[in-house]
Amino acid sequence: MANTLVVEKAKTSKIHEVDFDNLSFGSTYTDHMLVCDYVNGEWKAPKIVPYQPISLDPSAKIFHYGQSIFEGMKAYKDRDGGVWLFRPLENFKRLNKSAKRLAIPELPEAYFMEGLTTLLQLERDWVPQNPGSSLYVRPFMFASGTGFHASPADEYKFIIACAPSGAYFSGKVKVLIEETYSRAANGGVGYAKAGGNYAGQFYPTQLAVEKGYQQVIWTDDNNHEFIEEAGAMNVFVRINDTLITAPTNDRILDGVTRKSILDIAKSEGIATEVRKISVKEVVEAAKNGSLKELFGAGTAAVVSPIAAFGYQGVDYDLPELENSYASLLKQRITDIQYNRAEDKFGWRYKVI
Amino acid sequence: MANTLVVEKAKTSKIHEVDFDNLSFGSTYTDHMLVCDYVNGEWKAPKIVPYQPISLDPSAKIFHYGQSIFEGMKAYKDRDGGVWLFRPLENFKRLNKSAKRLAIPELPEAYFMEGLTTLLQLERDWVPQNPGSSLYVRPFMFASGTGFHASPADEYKFIIACAPSGAYFSGKVKVLIEETYSRAANGGVGYAKAGGNYAGQFYPTQLAVEKGYQQVIWTDDNNHEFIEEAGAMNVFVRINDTLITAPTNDRILDGVTRKSILDIAKSEGIATEVRKISVKEVVEAAKNGSLKELFGAGTAAVVSPIAAFGYQGVDYDLPELENSYASLLKQRITDIQYNRAEDKFGWRYKVI
Ligand SMILES: Cc1ncc(COP(=O)(O)O)c(C=O)c1O
Ligand SMILES: Cc1ncc(COP(=O)(O)O)c(C=O)c1O
Repeated sequence: MANTLVVEKAKTSKIHEVDFDNLSFGSTYTDHMLVCDYVNGEWKAPKIVPYQPISLDPSAKIFHYGQSIFEGMKAYKDRDGGVWLFRPLENFKRLNKSAKRLAIPELPEAYFMEGLTTLLQLERDWVPQNPGSSLYVRPFMFASGTGFHASPADEYKFIIACAPSGAYFSGKVKVLIEETYSRAANGGVGYAKAGGNYAGQFYPTQLAVEKGYQQVIWTDDNNHEFIEEAGAMNVFVRINDTLITAPTNDRILDGVTRKSILDIAKSEGIATEVRKISVKEVVEAAKNGSLKELFGAGTAAVVSPIAAFGYQGVDYDLPELENSYASLLKQRITDIQYNRAEDKFGWRYKVI
Repeated sequence: MANTLVVEKAKTSKIHEVDFDNLSFGSTYTDHMLVCDYVNGEWKAPKIVPYQPISLDPSAKIFHYGQSIFEGMKAYKDRDGGVWLFRPLENFKRLNKSAKRLAIPELPEAYFMEGLTTLLQLERDWVPQNPGSSLYVRPFMFASGTGFHASPADEYKFIIACAPSGAYFSGKVKVLIEETYSRAANGGVGYAKAGGNYAGQFYPTQLAVEKGYQQVIWTDDNNHEFIEEAGAMNVFVRINDTLITAPTNDRILDGVTRKSILDIAKSEGIATEVRKISVKEVVEAAKNGSLKELFGAGTAAVVSPIAAFGYQGVDYDLPELENSYASLLKQRITDIQYNRAEDKFGWRYKVI
């Protein structure tokens, strides 16, 4: 396929307008994007074109029925200018898992992998080298087919766009354990990276932000009894010296960072448990001092320590540890991602 | 506002290309649309422009985070060429209820009502007069603001597009009572007309279609114990001579047709109950013969009798009644909508 991938280069580059020392998250885009169309029952060969607006009929189903999914990855630059991805096949597989649940046709692996690699090779100068920065890579797919009938579209677009990015969170992260709203239903689409899952979180998150929190920790929708995940991160709890995270299910996104962190923790000799975590257990552990850490894990947020959580009107501060699991695990995973350490798991993927 | 509503007329009309005797649902669009932009913290005055493609940046949040809502209304033409809407303020209020839940800024009432009326006056020739046909009116709103950060957009578009339409369903409707998948979570966005609610239904509906059903009847996500609603309709059950529908809650759309049907039924002296309906009760009623009718009610589908339902591998046929509630109520509501009868409820709204 690589031979047939058509590349239309941008006439000029915007790269000189970008201040790589002061990157925000996901708000400047590179010169090119990959575009692939599903028409007449098949995915046509992808093309790389200059980053440009998308033109859609007002009746395109993306506007009406939320048929959209996405992925989030990062390209990392090492000291020698080499560019790397982290477990990209996991993102590809999850994309197709999401596609299936949203009744979107699955994409051939080669279109994703070769399209992605070729695009990143072309955009290599856009991958930042500054510590903590990376090129955020956003593959997404949506219904471009038209009609006001509530049924799956007959045409789709798959696009990969890239944004040189700095940190996702700034400052200390304080979270609110949610007691009223929910992110996902049993038997719903919570395990998919479906657009609609995110829009539904914005209002409850705004309410939490008004109360002084940055993020909501979602709980099950039956009784708000168990901790599930955060807006764009899976959640880890350290009680005494055991690291615990909720099992994935049809409400929780199966995070690539989550499973990588679990593997690294095990290899570091940290006791891990994958089991349901009740809010009650976390609150009691906070009260009796056995709750040592709480952190989020996700591609965008990497490993984000949580400084405090709120529940039923009470705030619980987490201790500030010298040698936290969060800092160790963040070090280890970023060492692999930025090609600073041996990759015994075979997770790194060379782009160029 | 009416004075300031800018109208840019289409140079030519597509109306002669349309076969008004063979209209499908929502697949041909009229010559104009209303567009209103939210920028710099406010909704700018709406404009009427020729129906045309929308151009968006690939990072527009509609593609990534599902921030989109819509409404569905119909414009009806009477024998004298008069054009009517049905309770349009209810749709306006629900639009803003949806907007709030999806963290989209609420729209001023005048922008909606005057925009809608002016657009329909301009498109009056597009409103079909054939029995069972109408002009389907689709107001929708979505995030046009950009960024890969999972947070609400700072720009939005509100659009009204119109499609002359025939019946939503063709043939007899057979439904499947869902036991695995769910439409909405407690504390979720099910009560909003959010795009994401529809995409999530497509896959389970496809599975039902493969088994020979047209639609899924959604049940609660805790235990699939209670009947909630169908894809784009609320559901009514007639047991003996009582008409029953589920109470609305945060998982169920508060349908305009549903509440109108309830009012009409009462005024016809039909016993009505708004209460939870267990699947068990419906199955038992089907077995002992007390289940007389099952029908869906919604703007698109009007009143759609259900011929049979499937549950746990068994199909239950509904009897074919001479004088069904469904046919009476459909007659009464469409008589009001098409200005064929007195409107004692004050629901009709004159467009022109
Ligand atoms: C809801 C949700 N949970 C968890 C994650 C973390 O997943 P990953 O580590 O694959 O980025 C993400 C972000 O991708 C997410 O959107
Ligand atoms: C999920 C859902 N339920 C019910 C309805 C019926 O609502 P209404 O009667 O207002 O059209 C609709 C359609 O609008 C819907 O989408």
